[in-house]
Amino acid sequence: MKVVLLGSGNVATHLAQASTAAGMQIAQVWSKTTENAAVLAAQVDAAVLDELDAVDRDADLYVISVKDDAIAAVADTLAGVPGLVVHTSGATDLAVLSSLAHSGVLYPLQTFSKLQALDFSKVPLCLEADSAENYSRLEAIAGRLSTAIFKISSAERTVLHVAAVFVCNFPNYLYQIGHELLAEKGLSFDLLRPLILETALKIQHAAPAAVQTGPAVRGDEETMQRHKGLLTNHPVWQDIYDSLSKNIKNAKT
Amino acid sequence: MKVVLLGSGNVATHLAQASTAAGMQIAQVWSKTTENAAVLAAQVDAAVLDELDAVDRDADLYVISVKDDAIAAVADTLAGVPGLVVHTSGATDLAVLSSLAHSGVLYPLQTFSKLQALDFSKVPLCLEADSAENYSRLEAIAGRLSTAIFKISSAERTVLHVAAVFVCNFPNYLYQIGHELLAEKGLSFDLLRPLILETALKIQHAAPAAVQTGPAVRGDEETMQRHKGLLTNHPVWQDIYDSLSKNIKNAKT
Repeated sequence: MKVVLLGSGNVATHLAQASTAAGMQIAQVWSKTTENAAVLAAQVDAAVLDELDAVDRDADLYVISVKDDAIAAVADTLAGVPGLVVHTSGATDLAVLSSLAHSGVLYPLQTFSKLQALDFSKVPLCLEADSAENYSRLEAIAGRLSTAIFKISSAERTVLHVAAVFVCNFPNYLYQIGHELLAEKGLSFDLLRPLILETALKIQHAAPAAVQTGPAVRGDEETMQRHKGLLTNHPVWQDIYDSLSKNIKNAKT
Repeated sequence: MKVVLLGSGNVATHLAQASTAAGMQIAQVWSKTTENAAVLAAQVDAAVLDELDAVDRDADLYVISVKDDAIAAVADTLAGVPGLVVHTSGATDLAVLSSLAHSGVLYPLQTFSKLQALDFSKVPLCLEADSAENYSRLEAIAGRLSTAIFKISSAERTVLHVAAVFVCNFPNYLYQIGHELLAEKGLSFDLLRPLILETALKIQHAAPAAVQTGPAVRGDEETMQRHKGLLTNHPVWQDIYDSLSKNIKNAKT
């Protein structure tokens, strides 16, 4: 099982580490910035690929993990390889790889930071391929990396991608508002960290609507008015408070 | 250390369990609904208090953990007791207990469900008292329940309470949108659960602004337009997408 990795960002880094841990050999690592490729290659005992033209053409798997708008150009350099070529993008259709003989998508639905370790075996891997045979190949590989394998079409993946913004980027922005509200009063963000974690733990085994709490779902207008009064110096946060509270009330079933 | 508990909701239940585990004796449990008091009293080996008039007047600590607008009425029935009387409300001033000789606040900043166990020793306990002496008494008691003790004034507590809405109730509503987006396509919410948990874990040791990801912070207009296109059947969610994305861009420093 010989793998070539095209990319060296957060996804590529975690994928390379998980692959190596699963006993797969990363033969080459390429990156637009060769220094970054060198750092990752050293971690997983792979060769650094300076020029895409010199890519190993006998690998079993090529993983393209670059910025969305760069996938097509990288794929072009792989024309004619007999191995399976996959990209890792949540927002890009499988069709971007249609010029290749064997193509697929391996989209890990998680937020990765290079410096933050995580248990890759629990990362949902969303798989798609251009044929049933290639799907089976991809599934066999992905099954060595994670126990959470999902067959997901390109159309479904775009919905996952927008849902990920709602459950990851947007909550993180709300954490930021909490952080700033406390900082203004000289209060430590440690006061909110356990609450944030528990809120995420609660929905691991429940539906979010079933565990909603707070003044909006209770219809506690007095508390909501008092809260908005505390936000008068922050009209943007006041608007967010208003809009989300109203929607929580309306969503109540 | 004899404790009387006035209330039997989520906060009262977790507080009673933690107190008992810490070796404190819950003497009596009262609730507006006596059946609920009976359930909790049985769990912590306490007597059920049917009528507030019959409250044990020699307890060391009285914990009022009822709906905010019922605190004053319960406090009235305790007039003249020599013990320390505290409420557990994030949204209520200490002054509501001003007719009592010894009063304070013990506000656990966490989201509690009766059926979900959690490690109470990590729950931030926000303390306030009407005198330095009573603060010391309260601090000694709270220190047996949790290692996260914070001295918080009534004015600070109101800010914590609104911040808690931003980092708990509002993210949970965004989880609900994610859940519904996936359900419409027949996709399992298990696809998003690890992402939600990792997002909350990431800020346990980082500031939220430092770990923000996604199209808004990258200024990736193309992806944002595509996402909004997927939400045309949900104008409310489209508005939330627009508003939060715009604010993430503006908050970027």
